[in-house]
Amino acid sequence: MVPIISIVGKSGSGKTTLIVKVVTELRRRGYTVGVLKHDAHGFEIDHEGKDSWKHKQAGAVTVALSSSEKFAVIKDVAKEWPPERIIDSYLNDLDVVITEGYKKSDFPKIEVLRKANSTKPVFSGDKRLLAYATDVKLKGDTPVYGLDDFKGVADIIEDRIIKKHAGGSVSLIVDGSLVPLKPFIDDLLREGVTGMIRSLKGCEDADEIELRIRRRK
Amino acid sequence: MVPIISIVGKSGSGKTTLIVKVVTELRRRGYTVGVLKHDAHGFEIDHEGKDSWKHKQAGAVTVALSSSEKFAVIKDVAKEWPPERIIDSYLNDLDVVITEGYKKSDFPKIEVLRKANSTKPVFSGDKRLLAYATDVKLKGDTPVYGLDDFKGVADIIEDRIIKKHAGGSVSLIVDGSLVPLKPFIDDLLREGVTGMIRSLKGCEDADEIELRIRRRK
Repeated sequence: MVPIISIVGKSGSGKTTLIVKVVTELRRRGYTVGVLKHDAHGFEIDHEGKDSWKHKQAGAVTVALSSSEKFAVIKDVAKEWPPERIIDSYLNDLDVVITEGYKKSDFPKIEVLRKANSTKPVFSGDKRLLAYATDVKLKGDTPVYGLDDFKGVADIIEDRIIKKHAGGSVSLIVDGSLVPLKPFIDDLLREGVTGMIRSLKGCEDADEIELRIRRRK
Repeated sequence: MVPIISIVGKSGSGKTTLIVKVVTELRRRGYTVGVLKHDAHGFEIDHEGKDSWKHKQAGAVTVALSSSEKFAVIKDVAKEWPPERIIDSYLNDLDVVITEGYKKSDFPKIEVLRKANSTKPVFSGDKRLLAYATDVKLKGDTPVYGLDDFKGVADIIEDRIIKKHAGGSVSLIVDGSLVPLKPFIDDLLREGVTGMIRSLKGCEDADEIELRIRRRK
């Protein structure tokens, strides 16, 4: 699994502003960064009348656009995908993913708290809370950064999130669900499958392997 | 690999119109359909000023948005991804993918030819050409459908593309490149890895397996 940090806080606390600065800073330090934003109210991204919009209207489950600079994918879902699954399927090639708005997830968190908005932290005492970014004076052991201290926030993300995952990762999705792996199984799959793949011509130095198997019922 | 059909033809021949009708028809027949459009001139999909746009401007390589109804992913690439790779990574869970505009690909093709636009087929004699959709009188053995005959086009896609893949599929991406698999290796990976995964608790009936292994250098 890719390293993940979730930026949480009430609406209007300044999550997006902080994320923009932290992304810029982590990028400057040489990391590839992805952002996943949860939008409880739904969102519109495609432009009415464009071809991809027409394809979607016609009933295509997934539409994609590709050019020499980027590509975009829009996909319908019957029920909301858990963020772990989106990240694992679509943002799995990055050094770190920052999520915005997944309050109920199990990801490590940084809470943004703005005095003008609220003075009461929501995640006080939560084991998954790494730090606050706030202009409120807070007691306790949790590290506190200023609202504008994007370098401090980038430091803690680098130390506690990115560097912890330096060894590599294995992830397994079976029939649409992410399967948690014990360390022994993790090792077994990594070494066993890497061995099989490296025995194929041209794959002797394989470092990143994606294998997809689909059986029709 | 997911079954793929490419709709090709000159600009203004009516590719998008045909695709919209064929998508509707295949959807009506119970298939899940994806569309991948190649845009040589680049495209804009995100809205200026929105959060995801800000994250992208800040240097995020990938931004994603998720709601209860859909999700969207926009990803920067250093050079254009081959369509096989986009399909294999992002449209791998569909019954069929229709591509628009990948003239040079090896996908099976249907050429759209509109008299008012051009009377000379481009893929005449090409082994990958399945049929024409046209109002031009053409000689030869290649099946010809009317420009509006979306049911006929859906029939040939169903018979020649979708039903051919009914057995299942294996795809392998190593360090970003799709690795072509011989039938023996295909079987070995499918049976070997499926066996390993099915021995895990809760995975006894696994039909769709995605396994990702990443080693840090």
